[in-house]
Amino acid sequence: MELFEAIALRHSYRGGFLPDPVPREDLVRIMEAGLAGPTGCNKQTVFLVAIDDPAVLANVRACINPPLARENAPAAICVLTKRVFAYRDKCFAVQDYSAAIENMLLATTALGYATCWYEGHITDDDRLCDQMANVLGVPEGYDLVCYLPIGRPVHEPRGPKKDAFEEHAWFNAFGG
Amino acid sequence: MELFEAIALRHSYRGGFLPDPVPREDLVRIMEAGLAGPTGCNKQTVFLVAIDDPAVLANVRACINPPLARENAPAAICVLTKRVFAYRDKCFAVQDYSAAIENMLLATTALGYATCWYEGHITDDDRLCDQMANVLGVPEGYDLVCYLPIGRPVHEPRGPKKDAFEEHAWFNAFGG
Repeated sequence: MELFEAIALRHSYRGGFLPDPVPREDLVRIMEAGLAGPTGCNKQTVFLVAIDDPAVLANVRACINPPLARENAPAAICVLTKRVFAYRDKCFAVQDYSAAIENMLLATTALGYATCWYEGHITDDDRLCDQMANVLGVPEGYDLVCYLPIGRPVHEPRGPKKDAFEEHAWFNAFGG
Repeated sequence: MELFEAIALRHSYRGGFLPDPVPREDLVRIMEAGLAGPTGCNKQTVFLVAIDDPAVLANVRACINPPLARENAPAAICVLTKRVFAYRDKCFAVQDYSAAIENMLLATTALGYATCWYEGHITDDDRLCDQMANVLGVPEGYDLVCYLPIGRPVHEPRGPKKDAFEEHAWFNAFGG
């Protein structure tokens, strides 16, 4: 799929999924896209665990309480970050995993799947992410920060209403 | 350009640029790509100022001290963030602008330009970003967080050495 088309079609999808399994080849392509993103000072702070074993997926999903409504995808990718300093006390781990996630959202879209960037719900004060990380055997020093269900959507993803371009982008001066 | 090709060809470019001006149509397409990215709870915290006026560009660039070596691009995009809470005390502004920047890096690549995500240098303790924001008339409440030079590269961008896929991505368990 053409880049600008993928960017235009990428939307957060919170509907149901078809049960069709996602071939590992596709999960690998999606993860390769994520890892191809830039990282501050090339520290490569992003780590990924794809889940396509139904038992593991059920155990991970059981940690998410309240559950993600209608989330029944046949596969998922969990995004881990290692919060190392890029230089001195500067850490760009959030920027790194966010760029990786955006690449994976686009790759998922281009391959005909749907997904949603679930971060706030699992990294909230009750730290569901730590329970999920425990299921996946994630060691100390890595934080699970995002859960991406991957599957064929039951219906077309649709985007939210966005502000007009002119309210967010200008030339040569703020508001210009 | 095809999505996966753009992802593979996107590299941080720190070399010189050709003087050819960047048509506004292309800068708009790049900024539209950025604003099409997801934002936490759709808060749309990302704002962009493209610079193609040579005088403004010179004034912004003069703030960057020490200068970015060989950075002589004919245009640039400055990324601003509004650090609002997505819900309660949760702010996803870094995630929002990082996804937007990654989209813009890919769009820049697809249109045959080169760029580099300059953030750490300008947001460091000496806050060059605040001087740059001042030149652009950025009001209180917005932070300038990234400078993206845009232009035709003198030589092909090349990526840094990256770890093997198997060191960063697994199935069903960390290290699995």
